[in-house]
Amino acid sequence: MAQTRILPAADNAYQYPLLIKRLLLSGPRYNPDQEIVYANRSKYTYTDLVERIHRLANALTDAGVKPGDTVAVMDWDTPRYLECFFAIPMIGAILHTVNVRLSPEQIVYTMNHAEDDVVLVHDDFMPIIEGVKDEIKTVKTWIQLTDSDSATATSVDTLGEYEALLAKADNQFDFPDFDENSVATTFYTTGTTGNPKGVYFSHRQLVLHTLAMTGTIAHFDEMPLLRSSSVYMPVTPMFHVHAWGVPYAATMMGIKQVYPGRYEPELLVDLLKTHKVSFSHCVPTIMQMMMATESIKTADLSNWHVLIGGSALTKGLCDAGAKLGIKMFTGYGMSETCPLLSATHMKPEDLELPLEQQTAIRVKTGIAVPMVDLEIVDPDGKPVPHDGEAKGEVVARAPWLTQSYFKQADKGEELWEGGWLHTGDVASMEPDNTLTIKDRIKDVIKTGGEWLSSLDLENLISQHPAVAGAAVVGVPDEKWGERPHALVTLKPGEQAGVEDIQSHLKQFVESGEINKWAIPEQIDFVEDIPKTSVGKINKKLIRDQLKD
Amino acid sequence: MAQTRILPAADNAYQYPLLIKRLLLSGPRYNPDQEIVYANRSKYTYTDLVERIHRLANALTDAGVKPGDTVAVMDWDTPRYLECFFAIPMIGAILHTVNVRLSPEQIVYTMNHAEDDVVLVHDDFMPIIEGVKDEIKTVKTWIQLTDSDSATATSVDTLGEYEALLAKADNQFDFPDFDENSVATTFYTTGTTGNPKGVYFSHRQLVLHTLAMTGTIAHFDEMPLLRSSSVYMPVTPMFHVHAWGVPYAATMMGIKQVYPGRYEPELLVDLLKTHKVSFSHCVPTIMQMMMATESIKTADLSNWHVLIGGSALTKGLCDAGAKLGIKMFTGYGMSETCPLLSATHMKPEDLELPLEQQTAIRVKTGIAVPMVDLEIVDPDGKPVPHDGEAKGEVVARAPWLTQSYFKQADKGEELWEGGWLHTGDVASMEPDNTLTIKDRIKDVIKTGGEWLSSLDLENLISQHPAVAGAAVVGVPDEKWGERPHALVTLKPGEQAGVEDIQSHLKQFVESGEINKWAIPEQIDFVEDIPKTSVGKINKKLIRDQLKD
Repeated sequence: MAQTRILPAADNAYQYPLLIKRLLLSGPRYNPDQEIVYANRSKYTYTDLVERIHRLANALTDAGVKPGDTVAVMDWDTPRYLECFFAIPMIGAILHTVNVRLSPEQIVYTMNHAEDDVVLVHDDFMPIIEGVKDEIKTVKTWIQLTDSDSATATSVDTLGEYEALLAKADNQFDFPDFDENSVATTFYTTGTTGNPKGVYFSHRQLVLHTLAMTGTIAHFDEMPLLRSSSVYMPVTPMFHVHAWGVPYAATMMGIKQVYPGRYEPELLVDLLKTHKVSFSHCVPTIMQMMMATESIKTADLSNWHVLIGGSALTKGLCDAGAKLGIKMFTGYGMSETCPLLSATHMKPEDLELPLEQQTAIRVKTGIAVPMVDLEIVDPDGKPVPHDGEAKGEVVARAPWLTQSYFKQADKGEELWEGGWLHTGDVASMEPDNTLTIKDRIKDVIKTGGEWLSSLDLENLISQHPAVAGAAVVGVPDEKWGERPHALVTLKPGEQAGVEDIQSHLKQFVESGEINKWAIPEQIDFVEDIPKTSVGKINKKLIRDQLKD
Repeated sequence: MAQTRILPAADNAYQYPLLIKRLLLSGPRYNPDQEIVYANRSKYTYTDLVERIHRLANALTDAGVKPGDTVAVMDWDTPRYLECFFAIPMIGAILHTVNVRLSPEQIVYTMNHAEDDVVLVHDDFMPIIEGVKDEIKTVKTWIQLTDSDSATATSVDTLGEYEALLAKADNQFDFPDFDENSVATTFYTTGTTGNPKGVYFSHRQLVLHTLAMTGTIAHFDEMPLLRSSSVYMPVTPMFHVHAWGVPYAATMMGIKQVYPGRYEPELLVDLLKTHKVSFSHCVPTIMQMMMATESIKTADLSNWHVLIGGSALTKGLCDAGAKLGIKMFTGYGMSETCPLLSATHMKPEDLELPLEQQTAIRVKTGIAVPMVDLEIVDPDGKPVPHDGEAKGEVVARAPWLTQSYFKQADKGEELWEGGWLHTGDVASMEPDNTLTIKDRIKDVIKTGGEWLSSLDLENLISQHPAVAGAAVVGVPDEKWGERPHALVTLKPGEQAGVEDIQSHLKQFVESGEINKWAIPEQIDFVEDIPKTSVGKINKKLIRDQLKD
């Protein structure tokens, strides 16, 4: 290592560790009277937020929570959850944001694996806990969260209700300094196989993610996320990668925040209108549900900017949104990456383009954000050309990536092979550094030394008028390594054969969209395409079935 | 210290230290073809910038520069200097930004004290070096910077000219990783007494300052500094606290940059017009010079936003600027603070106010920026009320403050008394957290247990129609501790006595601007008020003279 001159860091009395408590300094200072709204229920100011965070810290400490303990939360998107985002890490404990959509068995698994000490549970999720509480090993204290006037009766032995506990707690807490590498948050990712894996983030990582996000998104010409006139409403769950980290950024900037509680499309649209929301983040499915409401037709959404992530933003959805005035753009990241890695960057001249040309830019995965080192690499880890054609696995380095999986160091080493975080996504990169995700690496078809995107092929097959759906997987081939194998479902009453699909695909060879060798020899017409529990194509199962 | 769960930071293979090289990732990625302009001389792209930084790193390494060495620069505001901002720290060396306005003796002192190994010198400053080069002890290599077609002859034995060295250097440098607490930059502050003191900043500090600045300034509704359509031109020297850190932020964001070279008012205005500059930072004196040019009258400056620092922005200057369309606002910081501590925060509703009411907000010192912990304290270190009246010394904690003075640890301990950086400035804070600097602590008058601002009193005395200038200092008083003592100069042909001044001041007692006890008993009419070499009132000398 280079012999630089080093500041006397460790011994230095003036060190100022990067702690989440520092993110809370500026928002209330910029806008003490700024509002934080809870759906159509209640609202309070930033000054109130600070006081409630102090009360919550005292309530938890009174309940026996110590630094290093883990405090789990099962709640909808509420200001309570925002208070937990701050108070729990600020006392040195670890916030476990429980994925309430997991099966009860998986919830038990994650609580036991994370070694939760205290759990805050909303009434709506109490029945889940009532059913499994004997299997949960480490939890000593339950706290009830309620939106009713009085807490609902439960067989779970709780310490009390959140608001009551806050009311009797002291309103001053002296938040300590500690090592910035202390774990602040944890949560679990789910794959198609195996148990959920626990990722975790430190105070330093969350502070850096917040600072970089603030600078990044604010600098976009179009995007008023983080200007002081902005109004923010999350439309991804707060358990999902800390609502992509935006609540921290919005709070640091003192921006008006609207928490919708449950995701009911009509309510969401109503809140958009009432509060003139200017920034949200969302997965495509929820956006589709909101766009299908009757009330959205009468909303002025010309100032609503939406970061789409989770799955690909399609041109269809982006165009339909644009017709309503909604400005969508793509963000890319994953649970392991805190999550922000890249986002669509609309240049001033892009904003002058006709809407349909803007859409072509908005649906791409965008350009890596500041401080992120990102590459697309071949199986040997060598970068592939940035020509918009060559495909490689996306690998990243950044100051905010999970350092491993909790108590699964072997899987952590796999994740970080060669010192880069392997996303498992295959992408191409254009000469202007725009990334386009093409496939999951485990689904990409390696044929004749080239990578063929199963997603691209599925999209093209689906454009045949008789086709209802398509799934393409790679199957072993002696000569080419792998060859694509397609499963196709037809629309009711429609007819098509293997040659119809192949000749349909030939037009895309002629137009240069795919190579000749991309056309599958094997095309099976089936009744149903196997799906996973969350509705994704189950390619692992298809491959297993084809093997037999 | 709290027993939190700590990430295995030091041993961790996936650590990603906060190094200046990471600030260079995103700008060229967002805008590879974006321009960096050198006055009316030349321009190149961000892609060129990266290549030139690699070449400079090789040129310096070829010249024997090793990590931990110190490389000094004496240049105007040029893209060369920007290259040095990156390349020198990125190889692990320390960039010494030499204050070219110091006397030759002080330049010798700072070069010897900083232990410079290599110095890059512009032709315009070569005569200074020629005159003192025998007194400079540690410098082994001189490199010439020229704006002429061929380097000017000099008696200094240089390695060669910058452009020639870059041309023959390799265009690929493998910048190493190292400890983020490595010193990246150093420079010297000057006071009225004693030798210049060396402050220093680490890679981590500069990265954090950049990230915080980007988010902060970008979130202002008015301020387009860091949006991708912005055009940035510094109008404070790059040796002065790294041009307030803005070149790092602008580069990280890929924003168009215009470097003006020397500060010639007509040239500056010409560049503003040609490049439609949208953001600059400036001291009041230079702003006045620019506003006095003939050509500014025909400029469209309605998109020019200027951060004013160094000395107080007066209402007069702010109003005069507003009439030309210029949007000024105040930044606060000092050499010791990297520098950003606070800035005017114009809220959306403030921007709706008539211009003169906006001015009242713009001239205040603003609100502390994110991640900065800032307080005003009494002599015992206890916070004073935030009521807009009570005065206290401004103390700060932030992740980017100098940790000491180089080789003057005793002065560093004074600076950091009680674990807070003492700015030496006295200020009041309003209930909305807006700071207003009132005085330097050594000039404030402590009378009857209260702090009286010498600046306030000077301003009020100066409003008497016969008064040309005023200086007020505190003199020892047995009963009150100190009492104000005023020196007054009169305009040519004007007459006034002690009682005239006192009765003039009484109107401000009636209007509530000052207390009765603020009126000085001692008022001397003098020919001249002692000034320092940079034109500031020499209060130390006045106090010494009054003592005798």
